[in-house]
Amino acid sequence: MARTPKSFIREILKVTENPEIISFAGGLPNPALIDVEGIAKAAAKVLAEDGRSALQYSTTEGYLPLRQFIAERYKKRLGFSVSPDEILITNGSQQCLDLIGKVLIDAGDHVAIERPGYLGAIQAFSLYEPCFHPVILREDGPDPAMLADVAGRYPLKLFYGVPNSQNPSGITYSDERRREIAGILEGSGTLFIEDDAYGELNFSGRSSPSVREFLPDQTIITGSFSKILAPGLRMGWVVAPPEVMEQIVVAKQASDLHSNYLSQRIAFEYLCHGDIDARIRTISAAYRNQCDLMIRMFEEMLPESVTYTRPSGGMFVWLTLPDGISSTDVFERALRQQVAVLPGTPFYVDGGGQNTLRVNFSNATPDKIRTGVERLSAVIRELQDA
Amino acid sequence: MARTPKSFIREILKVTENPEIISFAGGLPNPALIDVEGIAKAAAKVLAEDGRSALQYSTTEGYLPLRQFIAERYKKRLGFSVSPDEILITNGSQQCLDLIGKVLIDAGDHVAIERPGYLGAIQAFSLYEPCFHPVILREDGPDPAMLADVAGRYPLKLFYGVPNSQNPSGITYSDERRREIAGILEGSGTLFIEDDAYGELNFSGRSSPSVREFLPDQTIITGSFSKILAPGLRMGWVVAPPEVMEQIVVAKQASDLHSNYLSQRIAFEYLCHGDIDARIRTISAAYRNQCDLMIRMFEEMLPESVTYTRPSGGMFVWLTLPDGISSTDVFERALRQQVAVLPGTPFYVDGGGQNTLRVNFSNATPDKIRTGVERLSAVIRELQDA
Repeated sequence: MARTPKSFIREILKVTENPEIISFAGGLPNPALIDVEGIAKAAAKVLAEDGRSALQYSTTEGYLPLRQFIAERYKKRLGFSVSPDEILITNGSQQCLDLIGKVLIDAGDHVAIERPGYLGAIQAFSLYEPCFHPVILREDGPDPAMLADVAGRYPLKLFYGVPNSQNPSGITYSDERRREIAGILEGSGTLFIEDDAYGELNFSGRSSPSVREFLPDQTIITGSFSKILAPGLRMGWVVAPPEVMEQIVVAKQASDLHSNYLSQRIAFEYLCHGDIDARIRTISAAYRNQCDLMIRMFEEMLPESVTYTRPSGGMFVWLTLPDGISSTDVFERALRQQVAVLPGTPFYVDGGGQNTLRVNFSNATPDKIRTGVERLSAVIRELQDA
Repeated sequence: MARTPKSFIREILKVTENPEIISFAGGLPNPALIDVEGIAKAAAKVLAEDGRSALQYSTTEGYLPLRQFIAERYKKRLGFSVSPDEILITNGSQQCLDLIGKVLIDAGDHVAIERPGYLGAIQAFSLYEPCFHPVILREDGPDPAMLADVAGRYPLKLFYGVPNSQNPSGITYSDERRREIAGILEGSGTLFIEDDAYGELNFSGRSSPSVREFLPDQTIITGSFSKILAPGLRMGWVVAPPEVMEQIVVAKQASDLHSNYLSQRIAFEYLCHGDIDARIRTISAAYRNQCDLMIRMFEEMLPESVTYTRPSGGMFVWLTLPDGISSTDVFERALRQQVAVLPGTPFYVDGGGQNTLRVNFSNATPDKIRTGVERLSAVIRELQDA
């Protein structure tokens, strides 16, 4: 436990709960885009028609029709076949990472992760005391030479990545890079953990292939309803090959018996009768507009020495400041101007990233994006000129 | 992971899903006693009045008003004060055990547990590879001399027990025994884990004191809404001293960020406006009737060589067969007569219990109890006479 980093984000978010602060620090979906009415209708229907069952204990794997729905959606959206038996419903996709840690990581095991890497995964895995190996994230995905080098030097248990609109960087792997990663790992004892929290939130509407397509027996996928349906239903899922799934089921049972059954039933009811595709299009379009505005503001306001990613989906942009400007200084000064951003250091398992910032665009109005970027830019210019 | 026992119960429950089987093997609350209408009303109100917030991400500790409600209920029901900051909402009380294991148990740590002990705790803790020390459960609680002996010989990290209507035995500790246990552990480095899933389901209406009253700084309590509200809301809580709670919060965040927020809001709405006390009285009265009938049937039908507990609450009776009669044989033969019971061996961390059976009374109609006990008794007599 002592090795698990306390969430820096969590501490920062407490500071930014003040409603007067323009916060780009968090990672919340835009609540205005949640279909509250549709979910309320689904809840009423489930409770009226089958409440006694929906409120009873249920199976560890999760509600079978919901798992079938997820399997069919993979077929439709990404073209690969998966059996519902290879899918388990979790208490949000964060729990997938904990279950994967429980099942796969023994103390000292070698785990590769993107650099920068998703903090939730670093926290979940850290509890099981792996030895982390960061693999630098380039514009089009993890550096293949670096991954090959790490995989050659250590018996990697797993490589964890977020190929679509990564958190924190906003980077999406190219198709080419996905194939390359699969090629490097194929036949080794390494599993690729494909965290796909943002895959449906792509601005172009074109889904990139899952790494599973190129590495079917060695890929575990984690998915989430939080970004496309509602975070408050706290529902995710994990897709794993049968021999791993067998152990995940045992770990899930020991962890909390099963996921919230009422929420599973509500989600399934909604997915059957609501128009989830239209909802996803609405959310993606809104985030694209917010992202476009933020990037335009960056182009206009930021000094040229600052570089940033240009996300094709998801919820985050990643800023790299010129060497010598500390993102903690930016954070502190911006906060005095009522703007919160997230220093990038907690995303680095090996230190570094002192000049990086994560900026969230999903949960800010156009006005706040304009005013927030103006103030942030002024702070950065001030520090640059000092 | 390899050390975590696969749930024997789970495997048996699969066999007994056949509706023609009279099952005393499971541990389900009676679904007829769930206030589906009241919960549906609460859900509709929460979603109509504050849906956008109830469906967003939330805090790791859980919904503050719900934690305040739980704290006030302890004051009212058991007379002790606890701060809401010492309470965290979990994904069912099983998750409390996993979080406790995560935070407190390192491989090789010494953990005492009742003999027989709750299988869910054995499963959750096993993952963290403790060395278990069983303490025999007598009619009025764990054998104090045995606990003192174990505590004297090993640096016990924790002692896990279910003082009220224990699962699997149905035993409730006497007040005297609670004091004695507190006295043995006081001032040592040992925490008492008081699993109180059944405390509200007592047939007399008189609550026994929490061990926390006698051992305030060394007791962790786990609670559950599954038995008094509904299992499908998948909600429990843990009460822990501040220095342990701080670590539990970190572990909870790494495990799944936070518990299902919609369910927390629904539960709180229900608890504020429904009559939870009347509901608990209804459930307790129904279970008392079912338990009384089962005990009367045992008195009438079972051979005198079979002994059994006489629960004052909860959901289970524990049978001890004469030496030489195997509960696995009873299980198999009874199943052929369409009656399922649960062999007691998985509840023993050190082997043994081959002649014990757990029998559930909460989820069976009077007819099923009569017919089931008749058939079960015939099977036991048959084996005894063989």
